[in-house]
Amino acid sequence: MQRILSAQLSAHVGEPVRIAGWVHRRRLLKSVAFLIVRDAAGLAQVVVTDPAVRAHLAALTEETVVEVTGTAVANATAPAGVEVTAPVVRPLGPPAAPPPFDLYRPELTASLPTQLDHAPVALRHPTRSAALRVSAAAVAGFRAALDARDFVEIHTPKVVASSTESGANVFALDWFDRPAYLAQSPQFYKQLMVGVFERVYEVGPVFRAEPHDTVRHLAQYTSLDAELGFVTDHRDVMAVLRHTLAGMLDAVRERAGGALATLGVSVPDVPAEIPAVHFTEALKIAGAPADEPDLAPAHERALGEWARREHGCEFLFVTGYPMAKRPFYTHPDPARPAYSNGFDLLFRGLELVTGGQRLHRHADYLAALAARGEPVEPYAGYVDAFRHGMPPHGGFAIGLERFVARLLTLPNIRQATPFPRDLHRLTP
Amino acid sequence: MQRILSAQLSAHVGEPVRIAGWVHRRRLLKSVAFLIVRDAAGLAQVVVTDPAVRAHLAALTEETVVEVTGTAVANATAPAGVEVTAPVVRPLGPPAAPPPFDLYRPELTASLPTQLDHAPVALRHPTRSAALRVSAAAVAGFRAALDARDFVEIHTPKVVASSTESGANVFALDWFDRPAYLAQSPQFYKQLMVGVFERVYEVGPVFRAEPHDTVRHLAQYTSLDAELGFVTDHRDVMAVLRHTLAGMLDAVRERAGGALATLGVSVPDVPAEIPAVHFTEALKIAGAPADEPDLAPAHERALGEWARREHGCEFLFVTGYPMAKRPFYTHPDPARPAYSNGFDLLFRGLELVTGGQRLHRHADYLAALAARGEPVEPYAGYVDAFRHGMPPHGGFAIGLERFVARLLTLPNIRQATPFPRDLHRLTP
Repeated sequence: MQRILSAQLSAHVGEPVRIAGWVHRRRLLKSVAFLIVRDAAGLAQVVVTDPAVRAHLAALTEETVVEVTGTAVANATAPAGVEVTAPVVRPLGPPAAPPPFDLYRPELTASLPTQLDHAPVALRHPTRSAALRVSAAAVAGFRAALDARDFVEIHTPKVVASSTESGANVFALDWFDRPAYLAQSPQFYKQLMVGVFERVYEVGPVFRAEPHDTVRHLAQYTSLDAELGFVTDHRDVMAVLRHTLAGMLDAVRERAGGALATLGVSVPDVPAEIPAVHFTEALKIAGAPADEPDLAPAHERALGEWARREHGCEFLFVTGYPMAKRPFYTHPDPARPAYSNGFDLLFRGLELVTGGQRLHRHADYLAALAARGEPVEPYAGYVDAFRHGMPPHGGFAIGLERFVARLLTLPNIRQATPFPRDLHRLTP
Repeated sequence: MQRILSAQLSAHVGEPVRIAGWVHRRRLLKSVAFLIVRDAAGLAQVVVTDPAVRAHLAALTEETVVEVTGTAVANATAPAGVEVTAPVVRPLGPPAAPPPFDLYRPELTASLPTQLDHAPVALRHPTRSAALRVSAAAVAGFRAALDARDFVEIHTPKVVASSTESGANVFALDWFDRPAYLAQSPQFYKQLMVGVFERVYEVGPVFRAEPHDTVRHLAQYTSLDAELGFVTDHRDVMAVLRHTLAGMLDAVRERAGGALATLGVSVPDVPAEIPAVHFTEALKIAGAPADEPDLAPAHERALGEWARREHGCEFLFVTGYPMAKRPFYTHPDPARPAYSNGFDLLFRGLELVTGGQRLHRHADYLAALAARGEPVEPYAGYVDAFRHGMPPHGGFAIGLERFVARLLTLPNIRQATPFPRDLHRLTP
């Protein structure tokens, strides 16, 4: 008899069934005992009346892996309207050691550090695994949206000869006796690959040696990167980002509906056009001085409130950030060169995505580095490629864990990844 | 007027069109000039008769990015049966510096090291980009096949506190003043996540400090990993691998048909059942001594010949490799404990995939490490999780670049990745 999942039981009422999973909970009452089995699809209730089976059940610890054969019987009072009766329970391994916290309670009561120390077990809790299911669905949506627009997936080096984004916050390593660094982003590579495929994306790890111990930073995170050529300016990039974001949220609804229900979260709609304000306008809306070079968190919150109030929208583009605060490869606004063709996307008053148009002329790269007093040499392999014809292009990067944490309003970004890496944590 | 791609021209015959791309080649004949424009979809022929446009064209170097407006006209002698006439040609950037090799010739004649030194330009050649399109399609097929069987995608740490596969060939780095290593595989993490989702996969970079400079080794490659729980033994894993492989090859056919045509390669069919021989039988077939502990390349080639001859099949499973040659987490064959429930999949006489059933009982892990004289401590966070109930499980890993290289019969694995990393190469 083929094993079925808990969610399939209702289609087999009246039939013999075989299920398998973890002992989620046992309840030994006077005349009857209940065994709750947890599998990939959820929970199944098994009813035990036979004294021998009951005695066997009493010896099974929580998290022991078992196989149960019995009969599927409709019971309106059972959790999913169906339960397994007259069971034979067979352990598929030795009795499990009890986890350091109860997995069967609705919430994990252990502190987050304790959960992270015991991640392989903590992640079995439905609230923890639900966040990771949402994450997987979001990535699937990211890819599907870009595949539909003829983007090509790439895989680029994670070890580089010089740091990509800035000299600080970089992990150094020994590469066959040569100094090397973990890539802080695939920025340069995705731009170069625009010269090959016009439109590319990458889903991969990036590394930031963040010396901050905050609820928003990880030292390794998953970056969802896209880059496209033959744009007029940053607005073409924003249009693709809107499409991608809508695809991600659609995929979360479609592929992770159960996880959303477990977490009691509903996913916002992405409007056909996301409202956009220029940076100078954003400062006014936020009540900030006109000479502020960047938006502080309080400004972003004020802008989030404004977008909800004025546009009924949880998303807001801020365009035209000052060049001084953007990376050297950022394309300026031709009409106002102190401002960039770079943008941020705010979600509920928090920065969610950064993107923009990039420089595409070799001479502009040389000028941009010179203006910042930076040598060309560390960037030579990158900058040199722009001598050989690159179209106007731009792109964006979404931090997957930050996206999931904000979507699900998780208090700590470490709840959006199975095995976080940070200033203190290198295990498990 | 919206830009269209070269491949869309035939749907716009008689209409004004706008195309854009790179100057692939110019041919200035006596009475007429031809401009070949390369874009993401292929090549387009532009016919120039106007002397002023011709003079303009003469000044454009190869690889300059241009936009062309004109009229699409059917012409049976033009490459795709259509060409653009009466064009206006507008450069979208400065004239490109000539690449160090001709991109318009059917084959790249530069040596592979030269190509790799100039990868951003070399990858623009249709033969080089075709391999990367096949790679992207194969990964999409891997995911789709596993998504269809309820696998969940995961993203796991690439920096670890102790080496995963073996103490050798590991890159060391400094993690906030603590020693750390680049992950050689997601093996331990994917096993732990079987405890959460039952079935998981990961597509991500792995790192091997291979001191060998060969055509088969990369120091960073993309590993396609899958792991599933509640298996009877390794044969359940082999069935999922067959399904996955078929999905990968279907996706290559469907999504990268043009790339296959460019390379003149056809993709083999995966039979409904891939033939399988036990290791002891494989030695006999290969004419090797019965006490050989592993298969040498010559043995694998002989087995490939045999599979083709006896089964008309390019694929062959070899099962039951001796335990002595498999990693410590390998599950033995209960009937013959000197042999494992591990397998290799050979493709055209070369090892393509390694997989098997893993140990799932905590006591078995302790015994396996003790038998090899290895301490438990470096593996503590991994081994300890097996105390808390893990189902019988197994999985496999496919090296993406090796897969693509073998499928396309590329002479060097470096042709299956955009920016290879090896003993000598850390740029571009």
